[in-house]
Amino acid sequence: MFPDIFRKLARGPQIVMLKDAAIISAFTGISPGYLVVDAGAGSGFLAIYMGNLVRPDGRVVSYERRHDFASLAERNVKKASMEKYVMIKNKDIFEGIDEKDVDVITLDLMEPWKAVEHAKGALKEGGFLVSYVPSVEQFRQFVRECEKHGLKHEQTVECTIREMVLKEQGTRPQIKGLMHTGYITFVRKP
Amino acid sequence: MFPDIFRKLARGPQIVMLKDAAIISAFTGISPGYLVVDAGAGSGFLAIYMGNLVRPDGRVVSYERRHDFASLAERNVKKASMEKYVMIKNKDIFEGIDEKDVDVITLDLMEPWKAVEHAKGALKEGGFLVSYVPSVEQFRQFVRECEKHGLKHEQTVECTIREMVLKEQGTRPQIKGLMHTGYITFVRKP
Amino acid sequence: MFPDIFRKLARGPQIVMLKDAAIISAFTGISPGYLVVDAGAGSGFLAIYMGNLVRPDGRVVSYERRHDFASLAERNVKKASMEKYVMIKNKDIFEGIDEKDVDVITLDLMEPWKAVEHAKGALKEGGFLVSYVPSVEQFRQFVRECEKHGLKHEQTVECTIREMVLKEQGTRPQIKGLMHTGYITFVRKP
Amino acid sequence: MFPDIFRKLARGPQIVMLKDAAIISAFTGISPGYLVVDAGAGSGFLAIYMGNLVRPDGRVVSYERRHDFASLAERNVKKASMEKYVMIKNKDIFEGIDEKDVDVITLDLMEPWKAVEHAKGALKEGGFLVSYVPSVEQFRQFVRECEKHGLKHEQTVECTIREMVLKEQGTRPQIKGLMHTGYITFVRKP
Repeated sequence: MFPDIFRKLARGPQIVMLKDAAIISAFTGISPGYLVVDAGAGSGFLAIYMGNLVRPDGRVVSYERRHDFASLAERNVKKASMEKYVMIKNKDIFEGIDEKDVDVITLDLMEPWKAVEHAKGALKEGGFLVSYVPSVEQFRQFVRECEKHGLKHEQTVECTIREMVLKEQGTRPQIKGLMHTGYITFVRKP
Repeated sequence: MFPDIFRKLARGPQIVMLKDAAIISAFTGISPGYLVVDAGAGSGFLAIYMGNLVRPDGRVVSYERRHDFASLAERNVKKASMEKYVMIKNKDIFEGIDEKDVDVITLDLMEPWKAVEHAKGALKEGGFLVSYVPSVEQFRQFVRECEKHGLKHEQTVECTIREMVLKEQGTRPQIKGLMHTGYITFVRKP
Repeated sequence: MFPDIFRKLARGPQIVMLKDAAIISAFTGISPGYLVVDAGAGSGFLAIYMGNLVRPDGRVVSYERRHDFASLAERNVKKASMEKYVMIKNKDIFEGIDEKDVDVITLDLMEPWKAVEHAKGALKEGGFLVSYVPSVEQFRQFVRECEKHGLKHEQTVECTIREMVLKEQGTRPQIKGLMHTGYITFVRKP
Repeated sequence: MFPDIFRKLARGPQIVMLKDAAIISAFTGISPGYLVVDAGAGSGFLAIYMGNLVRPDGRVVSYERRHDFASLAERNVKKASMEKYVMIKNKDIFEGIDEKDVDVITLDLMEPWKAVEHAKGALKEGGFLVSYVPSVEQFRQFVRECEKHGLKHEQTVECTIREMVLKEQGTRPQIKGLMHTGYITFVRKP
């Protein structure tokens, strides 16, 4: 099953956590037939996760500026047998987006605001632009740039997962864990 | 797009939150081709959410004991144009599961432990059994029953979403909100 | 006992939550003998809470610019029988702090950075300056101003309390509640 | 100042976190004059923390069954110069509480329910009994035992502190951290 394949992929640059991939996909409705543009690919985790959801007639195109990351992502796509659904493009998304009528664009970049203008051009009406950044200043600047281009800020959220541990002596939440990964911002083209 | 359709469905009994539907689907890999059994249907939200993901060749069969809920769920399935992928069954899942080789079974029930034996029979090897309950005692009893039947407890989590509010005077988390919905337990057939 | 007295005080402007008063006091060690300066008094809750801790030889001086709030705070001080330990001053803290060798200064103000210079002058060496603000931009600006004046940022935290509900049918966290009150920033004079 | 002294104490057995000591003290109003009974002392942290608050006329008596822990706690009491306010008693609290008319009893024990009957006898009317345990089953059993003895459950809470990190590139919550320490239960003698 897919969770088993997913766990075996090679890890390189910091990856989008499964919980965050889940929220991104759920809040934008990613499902069969969606055309998704993603950047940067990194290890390709988010692209592969979404690729599995848009099958069989959808497609994820994931931009990656760095050649080494693009190669790693490419290998992971093959390992996951997602070649038909996920295309890794060794290109800087800040230089333009080739696709048109895109349903969802996901940006896992340090400066997502630099992709807003291109994203606006590529998105279909009602399409979602999503950014995933660690800091408050980043999503503020992203939202400002989006609003400047007439895109509508829907919401910015953070998602926390806390595991419950079941022991003989009782049930309690996990003691240490991830308190923060990133802020997920959803913007929409009117 | 699907998020727009989803928001327009009629609400009846307490529904599985989108964030929790997201985590359930992501952690079990729900995607095209999956055969999913769900109970109880309630308003049909979780079933429709998953139905959208298993298209075009998968299927969600959602059991609902109460006739009124089954009708409401049925209407929502039609509203969402998911008739081909989601089947509402007006039957008590505690009396048996008709499907075989099921990928994922989701239980949004007050006493999910009563469905464990039937679930074990219906699941394929490696398949997931998921329960979604509000209280600690409920998931403890569910896990105990699963382990008694040789199913393996993978994890129990809670998922919290906190929205960030962007105002002129600054950025802050939402002040009031949902602090708890349910504990999600993942169990697997070896 | 004090918790019973505290609950009966008259509420006016938004008050510092008990949880936050607890963290502010614990992290700065507020206890008998401390000289504390506070602003703005608001309803006087935080001042009275700290006044109860600095008895019998310490003192809390709480600045309040608005006359109506100062009167309300004054009445609450009397209700709590804290006249000997808490002094409400109807003065704008931005115009200066009269006290010297202060152990802790607490700022529950929208623009706490405007009090940093005066606070630096009033604090003893090693003394704490604390701000309590709702937004990220506010504590960033406060910290910047403090660092400009050679004060050392120790930490900024948020504190969340979640209640567990015990019912016949099981134990679960409260469903709705306070997800955010304020960011508490601790700064210290070297 | 007290926070500096507190940080230098020798750590032995798992200690009550400062945040939890803060909430325990704030919700029970611990302040000058209180008579507090505590068990088990462990490293003496909670006892010393509370000892600092009850000065000059209050007292904390901390029970510790194990001789080695009692010695460690005793040394920490001396290091903090709290000998006049904190008394470490090398005695098992399950065998009885010598003090009468106690304001607050704090139990940092694995089986706090075994001390309920003695605690009821020692508490003054309106006095607080507090337990601090890691698991849900523990506080459930504690509350059940308290109610059997006519003590009133006020609330059970967990307290989470999340630090905000200020970097050049932006402001974000700490990435990893403590997601759980213990559940704090407040019970009161009517």
